[in-house]
Amino acid sequence: MKTKLTGLVAGIYIGQHRYTIESSRVPYLKTTFEGFEGDLHAGLARLSDVRVPHYPRGTVIRNTRQFSMLSVEELAEIAHAMQIPEVLPEWAGANLAMQGIANLTMLPPSTRIFFPGEAVLVVDAENMPCTGPGEVIQQHYPDVPKLLQRFPKAAMHKRGVVGWVEREGYMAEGDTVWLLLPPKVSYSY
Amino acid sequence: MKTKLTGLVAGIYIGQHRYTIESSRVPYLKTTFEGFEGDLHAGLARLSDVRVPHYPRGTVIRNTRQFSMLSVEELAEIAHAMQIPEVLPEWAGANLAMQGIANLTMLPPSTRIFFPGEAVLVVDAENMPCTGPGEVIQQHYPDVPKLLQRFPKAAMHKRGVVGWVEREGYMAEGDTVWLLLPPKVSYSY
Repeated sequence: MKTKLTGLVAGIYIGQHRYTIESSRVPYLKTTFEGFEGDLHAGLARLSDVRVPHYPRGTVIRNTRQFSMLSVEELAEIAHAMQIPEVLPEWAGANLAMQGIANLTMLPPSTRIFFPGEAVLVVDAENMPCTGPGEVIQQHYPDVPKLLQRFPKAAMHKRGVVGWVEREGYMAEGDTVWLLLPPKVSYSY
Repeated sequence: MKTKLTGLVAGIYIGQHRYTIESSRVPYLKTTFEGFEGDLHAGLARLSDVRVPHYPRGTVIRNTRQFSMLSVEELAEIAHAMQIPEVLPEWAGANLAMQGIANLTMLPPSTRIFFPGEAVLVVDAENMPCTGPGEVIQQHYPDVPKLLQRFPKAAMHKRGVVGWVEREGYMAEGDTVWLLLPPKVSYSY
């Protein structure tokens, strides 16, 4: 019998500054249908960017990147691959750092994450690595060469997921969440 | 090499009446972030129901059932299994009837559907059969016994999908759409 998939909220962060990808740790947070309250990425809609090349740049689309979530275990693997002591979630601009969810980056689209404070998040897609976090990591280890360039490869399939809010509510550091995965489908044509 | 997946819009329908699941055919339609303009299911949020048992009944959640879409080929299979000449898309309360998309009901969550009139839809989940369409089908074939009861089994995994609007725009009968499927993932834990 399959056990219920759960995880622990190791950290919550909000992005507040346009000049850096780095986010700031907060002890708890309110989620609305717009996203994480106080975060730059909140909004019901957003302008399309390089991450959605199937849209002309600047198209108004529904915001499915209201938050980003990653795994502290996968972050440790990234740090190991980059041969540095650690990579903090805020350096990657994360909103949520989770502990105890194996292969978090591989969670399928439509996975629901339930918080005790009623907030529910939905996974839309894997977050593909860009160079932004590499810049921040490089700033924290100025004496280690080429960290900026090494981040994308080290972080491939370990950089977490992005998604949106399905139910408004609250979340707090230390929360235990549970996950509802969509039925397995194998589409062929 | 994988060919691009496309399909044809065989029919567009809106649900206008609370007293019946049956929808009405229209030649074209505008989509907004709320859903299909003029349809009863439009809205940014909705109240949770029997289809999302992981929420207390009546919880305000993001509306991921703005539209339902099905395949005319799968409808023909349902009619064949029920031993009746046909099942029309509007009898099942569909908003969209597509032609030429194999295994439409198995499209994975997060599949995007692009219309020439700029509308883009996102698949959230398979639509599980209920008895509503069976009632309408029974009304159209009053002399055939037990159609109401036979619908759910005949329609299992052939009843299409539901989802929401990612980009506002237009759609028209006869449109050729293309589909963007999410990367295949196999999550195990």
